[in-house]
Amino acid sequence: MSRRSAPVSELFAAACGGDRGSLARLLSLVERGGDEAREVSRLSYPLSGGGYTVGLTGAPGAGKSTLTSAIIGELRASGQEVAVLAIDPSSPFTGGAILGDRVRMQDHATDPGVFIRSMATRGHLGGLSLATPEAVRVLDAVGRRWTLVETVGVGQVEVEIAGKADTTVVVVNPGWGDSVQANKAGLMEIADIFVINKADRKGVEDTRRDLEQMLELSDLPHEAWRPPILSVIATDKSGVPELWATVEAHRAFIEANGELTRRREFRLCEELREIVARRLEQRARELAAGDRWSELQEAVLRRTLDPWAAADEMLKSVGA
Amino acid sequence: MSRRSAPVSELFAAACGGDRGSLARLLSLVERGGDEAREVSRLSYPLSGGGYTVGLTGAPGAGKSTLTSAIIGELRASGQEVAVLAIDPSSPFTGGAILGDRVRMQDHATDPGVFIRSMATRGHLGGLSLATPEAVRVLDAVGRRWTLVETVGVGQVEVEIAGKADTTVVVVNPGWGDSVQANKAGLMEIADIFVINKADRKGVEDTRRDLEQMLELSDLPHEAWRPPILSVIATDKSGVPELWATVEAHRAFIEANGELTRRREFRLCEELREIVARRLEQRARELAAGDRWSELQEAVLRRTLDPWAAADEMLKSVGA
Repeated sequence: MSRRSAPVSELFAAACGGDRGSLARLLSLVERGGDEAREVSRLSYPLSGGGYTVGLTGAPGAGKSTLTSAIIGELRASGQEVAVLAIDPSSPFTGGAILGDRVRMQDHATDPGVFIRSMATRGHLGGLSLATPEAVRVLDAVGRRWTLVETVGVGQVEVEIAGKADTTVVVVNPGWGDSVQANKAGLMEIADIFVINKADRKGVEDTRRDLEQMLELSDLPHEAWRPPILSVIATDKSGVPELWATVEAHRAFIEANGELTRRREFRLCEELREIVARRLEQRARELAAGDRWSELQEAVLRRTLDPWAAADEMLKSVGA
Repeated sequence: MSRRSAPVSELFAAACGGDRGSLARLLSLVERGGDEAREVSRLSYPLSGGGYTVGLTGAPGAGKSTLTSAIIGELRASGQEVAVLAIDPSSPFTGGAILGDRVRMQDHATDPGVFIRSMATRGHLGGLSLATPEAVRVLDAVGRRWTLVETVGVGQVEVEIAGKADTTVVVVNPGWGDSVQANKAGLMEIADIFVINKADRKGVEDTRRDLEQMLELSDLPHEAWRPPILSVIATDKSGVPELWATVEAHRAFIEANGELTRRREFRLCEELREIVARRLEQRARELAAGDRWSELQEAVLRRTLDPWAAADEMLKSVGA
């Protein structure tokens, strides 16, 4: 046991007992990475697996946060607890942490059944894609049955994170708009449920037809889940109970046909490979201090060797 | 020489001679990666370094593509050639490739002095961050003096790519709006020049004050370049000549004080480390077929071992 493990295990025990401050500190350790994050992982991993994750994604301005807030209301009305991880740099949850604009989350700020946490999108490349599942498992291990993960549906990492939820909800608006156009393909791929939010605006039927056409083209197998398309007005909560019922229907469907287990196993194997890759990267950075590395780096800077050829030589010197 | 190298070298020679089809095919090889991309890299790397890269980034809808189009017009008016790489999934350049909406690029579609190329944002994690500098070097090697790289300013990878240009232009609109709020910090960090586009709308002065305050807080050293804030109306090109003059002023500034060389060397070293890391990752995936790996993976799936601990064991078996 390391000197540091005692405080982490104490934090963990307190968080399991319902202490929100301890939970927040555990998540900060996860964000930061390093030895203490490893310890958090060691403690939370065996206890996780009972919770369920719902991803919400879409273009900035699509109303994801308002919808998240409405879903929280829906869950709380039936007495269920919920956690929210906001990865979206345009979210008022995340934005609130930076700029103090907490307007839309005030509905739930004082409710002990709701835990809202923003995760920083800055830091190392790929950092969020490993920190997010870790954070979800901590919430899961301390007893949160539902975790909503809100991400912006623009950007490679962010769309991927949304796609790693158990059920992924893609939020669009009537008319779509320039802002998501070309990203449609990526969003189509991860969507389990489509929500047309702001459905009091014109263009709902065109958007629905558009989505249906794309679903036709995607050629789903007969027995697969076919993403339903729901209309919602998040600001007045209309359509939100139906949305939540659909999330539960999707959950029941993938639990029954074994898809949930397969998805989760696939995600864990992918995560494992990514961790190994990151550790190897760390090793490469340590090696970068060596003489042979400096020589090769110089050759690249002098343009006598291209970066890929230099990398080959560097790897030879590591025996990889 | 591999069997495949002959066609690549022929393509390269043709592209150097001005053949656009060959250039397009070289860029497709870069996007795809693999042995032929390596060959493209080997050929283009020694010839690159003479071109200059300008990054344009901002929220979806900020008018980046219209501005890019106006800058192309500015460069063409003085007889200069230009290439554009659109990484932005919301760009009509990129969107055009997928959806056929090529409206705003039609101005330049038939001009042989303009080469526009979209890069796919899908594929492997981190793929774009390595493919983009490669693509820029190909354009550079075949003689393009100016390359504009347009990315959406939301999303980890995309903001980083914009920040890797020689001069980075951050495009905002009066009032900013929810969509970029929390990403301000990331955008502030990479900006060499701020452009307030759509400056005929109200709120320009507030936005300028806002940006100036943030610049105050960022505590730049006395001798550093201080990002100017320009007002532009890209749709009627007003302010665009001043913007381009500012890009050239920034270029002259960082050329004179050695910053350009330092930036480029730093970027190359970072790229080299990333390539090594990616190669190691590939090695890890090969190892993933082994027995010991399967055992450890099973332990993770049974939740008897957490992913980080399993990764430790896997790395031990590789000797890393």
